[in-house]
Amino acid sequence: MTRTRFHQGLDHLKESLLTMGGMVESSLEQAVRAYRERDQALAQKVLEREASINLAERDIDQLALDLLAMQQPMAVDLRFILAVIKSNSDLERMGDQAENIAQRALEVSALPPLELAFDLARMAALSMQMLREALDAFVAEDPDAAQRVLLADDEVDQINDEAFEAVQRAIRRNPDQTRQALDALVVARNLERVADHATNIAEDVIFWTRGADVRHRANTATND
Amino acid sequence: MTRTRFHQGLDHLKESLLTMGGMVESSLEQAVRAYRERDQALAQKVLEREASINLAERDIDQLALDLLAMQQPMAVDLRFILAVIKSNSDLERMGDQAENIAQRALEVSALPPLELAFDLARMAALSMQMLREALDAFVAEDPDAAQRVLLADDEVDQINDEAFEAVQRAIRRNPDQTRQALDALVVARNLERVADHATNIAEDVIFWTRGADVRHRANTATND
Repeated sequence: MTRTRFHQGLDHLKESLLTMGGMVESSLEQAVRAYRERDQALAQKVLEREASINLAERDIDQLALDLLAMQQPMAVDLRFILAVIKSNSDLERMGDQAENIAQRALEVSALPPLELAFDLARMAALSMQMLREALDAFVAEDPDAAQRVLLADDEVDQINDEAFEAVQRAIRRNPDQTRQALDALVVARNLERVADHATNIAEDVIFWTRGADVRHRANTATND
Repeated sequence: MTRTRFHQGLDHLKESLLTMGGMVESSLEQAVRAYRERDQALAQKVLEREASINLAERDIDQLALDLLAMQQPMAVDLRFILAVIKSNSDLERMGDQAENIAQRALEVSALPPLELAFDLARMAALSMQMLREALDAFVAEDPDAAQRVLLADDEVDQINDEAFEAVQRAIRRNPDQTRQALDALVVARNLERVADHATNIAEDVIFWTRGADVRHRANTATND
């Protein structure tokens, strides 16, 4: 097995991860749209895609293991493979969040809509943008771009806190719409987790490209 | 670097993972107790331990990378190292759940307690038992023991669904206790995630020891 074959394998691994990223992005976008527009057919489509995302996760892990078994990789290649393994797991869990949101979409579709004083649309846009930018940073092998992803997480967390307050107020005002309010809270928490996973991927890119472990130092790093 | 040194390294990696598992177990147990008994000092203790758990995660990843760089591992050792890397990440995220529960404990400590018609204590006991048994299966390298962990997840999911209903009813009955009810819902979801992470660890043990990937086939497997 030549060094070149090994590097072709690394390229293939990266492409597979990005393909999976695209599937997850698409699921998240559709799940949020299904929830906001009460589109049952679209929600169903998200649920059906879940199996393919799970399969893709398995294939990527297997590719990574095959590469590790192929030869004794250099440090930077090892860090890359580790970043793929971890990002792969984050993407799959984002797929789970999309699935959860799609399930809520099915549930609320029969209920009257409820106006809530927090910006779910912005939260969704931000968390999906974080995913997109984390994947772009992966492609570009750009730790600075990855670093910028970490900044957006604070705003998502803030909207999530606002959601908690907004849901409380909405319930006091309309106790008969408690169900929709709780559903909205759960969707907000799903999106907050999407942003967390995007943060993890960005940190993996930084770890891989810089060799430094930024996890658990994100706050310090972004306060520079 | 001899084969023996490498195997000592693998043993050290396993011990480090189990030590981290012990820290996370302890944090979860204390976080739930702090929440149920409204013990602010105990909640604070959980929050203080978070930094050590994060450090432990980083050290374990580095150990795993060093071992991968040391020599070309055999397939079973590769699977073991991959299982450690993934379980390590699950343990750290369980630590995050403990942190979240401890934060809720601090928040509710000033509010009057609220009786809810779902069994939070049982949910906590089940999810922590799943973690304990997943770690035991890791030590024993026992895929059958790991398989049994997967069975418990259904009951946790069921209590989580009951929590959603119970919280709705409680809010309709006592709208002025909406805050406590939402907090309980969030804690229930944290515990449900703990059980999910324990399931992931159990699946990693099965993958490592049997070489088969059981992820996303758990339902089929447990219906045998």
